[in-house]
Amino acid sequence: MTDAAASPGLRARLLIDCSDRPGIVAAVSGLLARHGGNIVESDQHSTGAADGHFFMRMVVDLDAGPTETPEAAAERLRASFAVEVAGRFGMRWRLTLVQNRPRIAVLASREPHALMEMLWRWQRDELGGADIAFVVSNHPDHRGVVERFGLNYHHVPATRANREEAEDAILALLDGACDVVVLARYMQILTGGFLGRVGLPVINIHHSFLPAFAGAEPYRRASDRGVKIVGATAHYVTEELDAGPIIEQDVVRVDHRSSVPDMVRLGADVERMVLGRAVRWHAEDKVIEHGGKTVVF
Amino acid sequence: MTDAAASPGLRARLLIDCSDRPGIVAAVSGLLARHGGNIVESDQHSTGAADGHFFMRMVVDLDAGPTETPEAAAERLRASFAVEVAGRFGMRWRLTLVQNRPRIAVLASREPHALMEMLWRWQRDELGGADIAFVVSNHPDHRGVVERFGLNYHHVPATRANREEAEDAILALLDGACDVVVLARYMQILTGGFLGRVGLPVINIHHSFLPAFAGAEPYRRASDRGVKIVGATAHYVTEELDAGPIIEQDVVRVDHRSSVPDMVRLGADVERMVLGRAVRWHAEDKVIEHGGKTVVF
Amino acid sequence: MTDAAASPGLRARLLIDCSDRPGIVAAVSGLLARHGGNIVESDQHSTGAADGHFFMRMVVDLDAGPTETPEAAAERLRASFAVEVAGRFGMRWRLTLVQNRPRIAVLASREPHALMEMLWRWQRDELGGADIAFVVSNHPDHRGVVERFGLNYHHVPATRANREEAEDAILALLDGACDVVVLARYMQILTGGFLGRVGLPVINIHHSFLPAFAGAEPYRRASDRGVKIVGATAHYVTEELDAGPIIEQDVVRVDHRSSVPDMVRLGADVERMVLGRAVRWHAEDKVIEHGGKTVVF
Amino acid sequence: MTDAAASPGLRARLLIDCSDRPGIVAAVSGLLARHGGNIVESDQHSTGAADGHFFMRMVVDLDAGPTETPEAAAERLRASFAVEVAGRFGMRWRLTLVQNRPRIAVLASREPHALMEMLWRWQRDELGGADIAFVVSNHPDHRGVVERFGLNYHHVPATRANREEAEDAILALLDGACDVVVLARYMQILTGGFLGRVGLPVINIHHSFLPAFAGAEPYRRASDRGVKIVGATAHYVTEELDAGPIIEQDVVRVDHRSSVPDMVRLGADVERMVLGRAVRWHAEDKVIEHGGKTVVF
Repeated sequence: MTDAAASPGLRARLLIDCSDRPGIVAAVSGLLARHGGNIVESDQHSTGAADGHFFMRMVVDLDAGPTETPEAAAERLRASFAVEVAGRFGMRWRLTLVQNRPRIAVLASREPHALMEMLWRWQRDELGGADIAFVVSNHPDHRGVVERFGLNYHHVPATRANREEAEDAILALLDGACDVVVLARYMQILTGGFLGRVGLPVINIHHSFLPAFAGAEPYRRASDRGVKIVGATAHYVTEELDAGPIIEQDVVRVDHRSSVPDMVRLGADVERMVLGRAVRWHAEDKVIEHGGKTVVF
Repeated sequence: MTDAAASPGLRARLLIDCSDRPGIVAAVSGLLARHGGNIVESDQHSTGAADGHFFMRMVVDLDAGPTETPEAAAERLRASFAVEVAGRFGMRWRLTLVQNRPRIAVLASREPHALMEMLWRWQRDELGGADIAFVVSNHPDHRGVVERFGLNYHHVPATRANREEAEDAILALLDGACDVVVLARYMQILTGGFLGRVGLPVINIHHSFLPAFAGAEPYRRASDRGVKIVGATAHYVTEELDAGPIIEQDVVRVDHRSSVPDMVRLGADVERMVLGRAVRWHAEDKVIEHGGKTVVF
Repeated sequence: MTDAAASPGLRARLLIDCSDRPGIVAAVSGLLARHGGNIVESDQHSTGAADGHFFMRMVVDLDAGPTETPEAAAERLRASFAVEVAGRFGMRWRLTLVQNRPRIAVLASREPHALMEMLWRWQRDELGGADIAFVVSNHPDHRGVVERFGLNYHHVPATRANREEAEDAILALLDGACDVVVLARYMQILTGGFLGRVGLPVINIHHSFLPAFAGAEPYRRASDRGVKIVGATAHYVTEELDAGPIIEQDVVRVDHRSSVPDMVRLGADVERMVLGRAVRWHAEDKVIEHGGKTVVF
Repeated sequence: MTDAAASPGLRARLLIDCSDRPGIVAAVSGLLARHGGNIVESDQHSTGAADGHFFMRMVVDLDAGPTETPEAAAERLRASFAVEVAGRFGMRWRLTLVQNRPRIAVLASREPHALMEMLWRWQRDELGGADIAFVVSNHPDHRGVVERFGLNYHHVPATRANREEAEDAILALLDGACDVVVLARYMQILTGGFLGRVGLPVINIHHSFLPAFAGAEPYRRASDRGVKIVGATAHYVTEELDAGPIIEQDVVRVDHRSSVPDMVRLGADVERMVLGRAVRWHAEDKVIEHGGKTVVF
């Protein structure tokens, strides 16, 4: 059953990864059953039975006591899980309540299409249950449109000269206020210092089909190379530029009649769709990073 | 881990469906753990936590005793499963050993492309571990090419007049020799009587994007209608023509320059790919029929 | 060369269709050459050299006299063309100046996604050089957002009871003010009377992959049928519901996990893209209707 | 009208490219009209009205005199064209008769899928009217299957040590016997010397979506990078490895469950389709190389 169609009640998502070995599913599902949990979705993946890495996502309907708050019920389950299962298998894991909506900070520059798509999808509640906390931009241009959506807009000018100062200002805004950062065609390079301190996943939409045409001006270079297909890539940001784990990619056909501006326009449509999917999947706890790649359930 | 990359050993696939209720996963994984099984793949789906239907596929590495044959180990597990789990939840289920290669009967008429694709994928072992047992055709045309693949070819002439007789002949060939029937552009209609008696799943490739253009001459009708995309559909055959559960579909763009012969040619490529995927997934026990639809894990 | 990249100057588009016979291209290109025109794009199509129908689109840079207005130069060319070429070959034709931006009337109901896409693409000038003249809706909901784009919003309530009256009101708004009507998920059926009187092409976005699931609730019916792909169709509206000439279609994969609301959401993205392309191509004079189908150059 | 549907008669294809300037279409179509030619297909493209490059492809039904051979009629037209049109505009051009079927030399190594696809499509006459002249391989493996298609098989062992000798042997086979060379997963690098002397276009299918993963082992590298889409590229071979003009590309989705062997298998299907289309288009004179890129009409 999809989350969207779920009956109300107390629903949680459990994300796990660890070295693969026998008994993981039985241990997890046994513990959930003892807590009265009903597994409504479950996906797992292993990179190999021997020496493999194991990944699992479960959506579970929980049974809260009559006087128990949802958070208390989740906390009770987390405590049991940590002691009885996670430690034993050396798991990385998290358990989130579906009712706790993730908060997104959107960073944008002049190009509006990715920002607009985020605003729109948020208005239609198509971001996997996430909300946009605020928008930050190094340009003042989008204040009007963002504020008309009822959202806060922070103009943080950023240049090479004041990069550190600008990043400090953004970190101050993010602090405790967000769960994920989305770069909606934010054209400033984030420093390793920023990424080290932000403590949140950062999702970027890159306007090429990585690893082809990493770096600047991908459409011009794609046109020069005479490719017949261009694309876009949503990925987690790491210190190495355009090399972080890929969440989603998609493509569109071009041909000899496509000028660079045509490719930019066609590519913008792909960027919007790819970023929308990636953010939705992240917010639904469907993505696990491991070894520079992602598992997307 | 994919089956292809599996270490040798005793590997089984378990397919389950039943009314959804709490505790199914825990019961199944608990029983497997008690038998020393290690779950290497697991997919599940529920149409809804309340009043929903539950589907699950697991790939499990089994632990056979030192003197136990693989079949004996599987039989031991089947017996436990029937008593301890399946009955309790009212499950439809089957457990198959990956080493037991399913046997396909391919039925074809004059058009060679779907037949050739089946032969070729079999030769490359791309049919999900299935083998082609033999080919039946209402035409003698393909005997040479089929026999050069080292396969038996049975020419069973079929007309409206001798339909019953022809179907009897085919049923006699299939009896005990096959696990699935693949209609690789077999242009004779199979009667309800045949389908009632065959006792095997029958997969057809239909040369249109069902339900658009069900019935005869889909490409001509697609051309008349001026569609911009045509496609193909692989489905299980039921008595109602072209209405059985869909396993896979795919499409290809056409335009005003595409003549009907062009569409036939472009469509043939889609038919080959779609049929190849559907047969592969069926052979890998990835498809569950329910309520006129399929779950494809 | 694409229009977007064109140098300024006097550029026209010529659309032609007629019975095919030798000499058409030579006659057209000869006349254009004598008028100092330079053909910068040319596409043609014939349904068959014998008894076929011929279609052509040309983009031409014209040579206006030093004191001649663009319209006068176009008029001079139209007059020659009518006398020397069009009459001789029995052509349907039109010659439009690229600088004359087509005016679109957008009709919408409650669902906002197709309307928003139109507004947004207009703001980015991605509608092939067309402008939105105004928006008409049978609901008051979208007034705020439309007016913030600087566009007029006309609320024309429409029910079965007042259909004729409502259509009269819409016709009065359209009269002389628009060149094309776009139904951006306008959920009222337009009568044959309206279509007969409107005298403009009407483009609709249908939320299914026609001819599959014509009529109401296509996503629910697609889900019931268990299809693996859903799509959307942009077409010219004719009196027969959902049967007009198809301009563009596209699709998206769904699977057993896709609920009807999921399909609605995924389908909405396809509808937006398909409608955007269809309106753009229409505005660029790339679409010719003939025999219930379209040629899209 | 597509070639396939053409009435018999004398049909030619004219490919042109030159610097763009006014009057080209009028000059070409005027000359064809004077020779009694009827243009049944025409495509053109210009990279820009000013300083642009112009490309055109026409399919023309010619009028041969009652006692004139097709070749004589074509020769007469070629002579006029050279004098009256081509010289004046500085054109690169060729005029071919559709009845003259291009001859393909297929070079293959161990991997059979691209070779088999070529054989099959030839048998079904799906190579745009081209015939396979013979197959050359550096392995003896495919002799049986090739000869059963009634085609000659030349085993030319090739190693680093004897590369020059092997290339000489292949050149001797090609000499005067072929019009195009198709590398159907031929895993030997062709030297600049070979390419300089062969005097024929050479089409390669590369098993990655160029420019991503140029070079060896693209699927392993794609898997390591965690891409969500892999593809294949058909291109003309130039001295710089994997950098020649791209004719066609296509892609297929992969995910975290796709092992490298899965990608190889999925990719092989894309390679077959992409190579089939590229060879077909080349044989139909639809491809013009210019500036390291292609125009594909």
